[in-house]
Amino acid sequence: MKLATVRTGEGTRAARVVPGGCVLLDAPDVGALLARENGAEAAASAGGEVRPLDETTLAPVVPRPGKVLCVGLNYRNHILEMGRDLPEHPTLFAKFADALIGARDDILLAPESSAVDWEAELTVVIGRTVRRASEDEAVRAIAGFTVMNDVTMRDWQFRTKEWLQGKTFEGTTPLGPVVVTPDELPGGVRPALALTCRVDGEVMQKGDTSDLVFDPVDLVRYASTILTLRPGDVIATGTPGGVGHARRPPRYLSDGATVVTEIAGIGRLENTARTA
Amino acid sequence: MKLATVRTGEGTRAARVVPGGCVLLDAPDVGALLARENGAEAAASAGGEVRPLDETTLAPVVPRPGKVLCVGLNYRNHILEMGRDLPEHPTLFAKFADALIGARDDILLAPESSAVDWEAELTVVIGRTVRRASEDEAVRAIAGFTVMNDVTMRDWQFRTKEWLQGKTFEGTTPLGPVVVTPDELPGGVRPALALTCRVDGEVMQKGDTSDLVFDPVDLVRYASTILTLRPGDVIATGTPGGVGHARRPPRYLSDGATVVTEIAGIGRLENTARTA
Repeated sequence: MKLATVRTGEGTRAARVVPGGCVLLDAPDVGALLARENGAEAAASAGGEVRPLDETTLAPVVPRPGKVLCVGLNYRNHILEMGRDLPEHPTLFAKFADALIGARDDILLAPESSAVDWEAELTVVIGRTVRRASEDEAVRAIAGFTVMNDVTMRDWQFRTKEWLQGKTFEGTTPLGPVVVTPDELPGGVRPALALTCRVDGEVMQKGDTSDLVFDPVDLVRYASTILTLRPGDVIATGTPGGVGHARRPPRYLSDGATVVTEIAGIGRLENTARTA
Repeated sequence: MKLATVRTGEGTRAARVVPGGCVLLDAPDVGALLARENGAEAAASAGGEVRPLDETTLAPVVPRPGKVLCVGLNYRNHILEMGRDLPEHPTLFAKFADALIGARDDILLAPESSAVDWEAELTVVIGRTVRRASEDEAVRAIAGFTVMNDVTMRDWQFRTKEWLQGKTFEGTTPLGPVVVTPDELPGGVRPALALTCRVDGEVMQKGDTSDLVFDPVDLVRYASTILTLRPGDVIATGTPGGVGHARRPPRYLSDGATVVTEIAGIGRLENTARTA
């Protein structure tokens, strides 16, 4: 099953993606749907008129997650090629929901930054409340997967040792286009999927989500040791090599740049960078 | 005016603190109250029965802030005594709302940490929506001030370079007891108040909130450059010297330890550390 959150004349609505379009569901968004008892099961069987799915109407697939957790330094090949040791623990940082945009929305280039960069990421969407999850509980807590581009103001990220301020600029971070349930993905809750980021048509990042040091189940277990994960919370699992900041010379997004972030089997974010 | 959020048989309620007790207000909590057009003004004039204020019923004064922003390295004397230069930019990190507890609740000692530490902090509560605030707009965006103890799992804080995971353990971070409006505080929106943290009766931290490198108005301006601040968002402004981790030998909270965090003119958090 593929779920989306679409903007309508009366606010957002959760929708199930079907051949030829989508069926609107009785919930304001995918986060609210997942928070309901058996919300995903109800969505799977819900009938209704099939409407065309206009991708420009996609909201962030979870518009207001209770938590947006992000993971740094999590692609094995990239860590090893940088000559670093594999980490013992995941590096976690936060984003606030204000950063999120839809799958076709413009990425806002704040005039205060001159180093806006891309980071394509497989993203876990939580479907059940869990704390100190066993492996089995962590598996069942994963409602599905989506795509994030963890767009980052590098100059602000590195102003201090804590990355948050470069990671949470408003209107920068596309999340979507859909949440895909694990049963539809090769590898299931540990999906093995090709991930790419193209800027102005050029492939900048190319990875495989099976290369994660800490896989989605590991991350749900780890994060749930710290605090309760709830339906609609998201965990962005980190990005492979190829970001603009690591290029020589560095390369950043400028007004009009197109950013296409794609994970095979999930979908594609297509965003244009625009000076705010 | 002093505002609190109290737990009742039917969920939480905002309340105005008055001589001899409190008056319940028509809002579920202080965050929801501030989010209403002229919510604070309405609270100031609301009448009603004066009930006794049982401090054990205090919820986190804003139970579910949209954002909990925290500032590191912000007390001048402490930075200078450590032999460091004053920072050019605020260090910002996040907490999630799941970490928050009421002013008399137990601090949960997770069995996964053996280094739970205290950090007394003056905390700004936002009352108006602002982005890229001018100085004047920042002043008007400050609804008032409260007290946080930014309880920190030091072992988890320093597992990786990003502090988040040590900062957001569930049920660790008291916020309250009340929000005090700036007109009641010496220094107003840049309050000059004595701040202390005592553990088992011993004074561990002693500071003055006039010693901040980045004062509340600076912090609202800085954070609002990054994203929109909204009513109920909170900004914890950092802690002075005297934390347990910096002592030789280090000292941490153990089961039964009492932690009293007080800012003169605002109020006092009294929490007991308890193994979860």
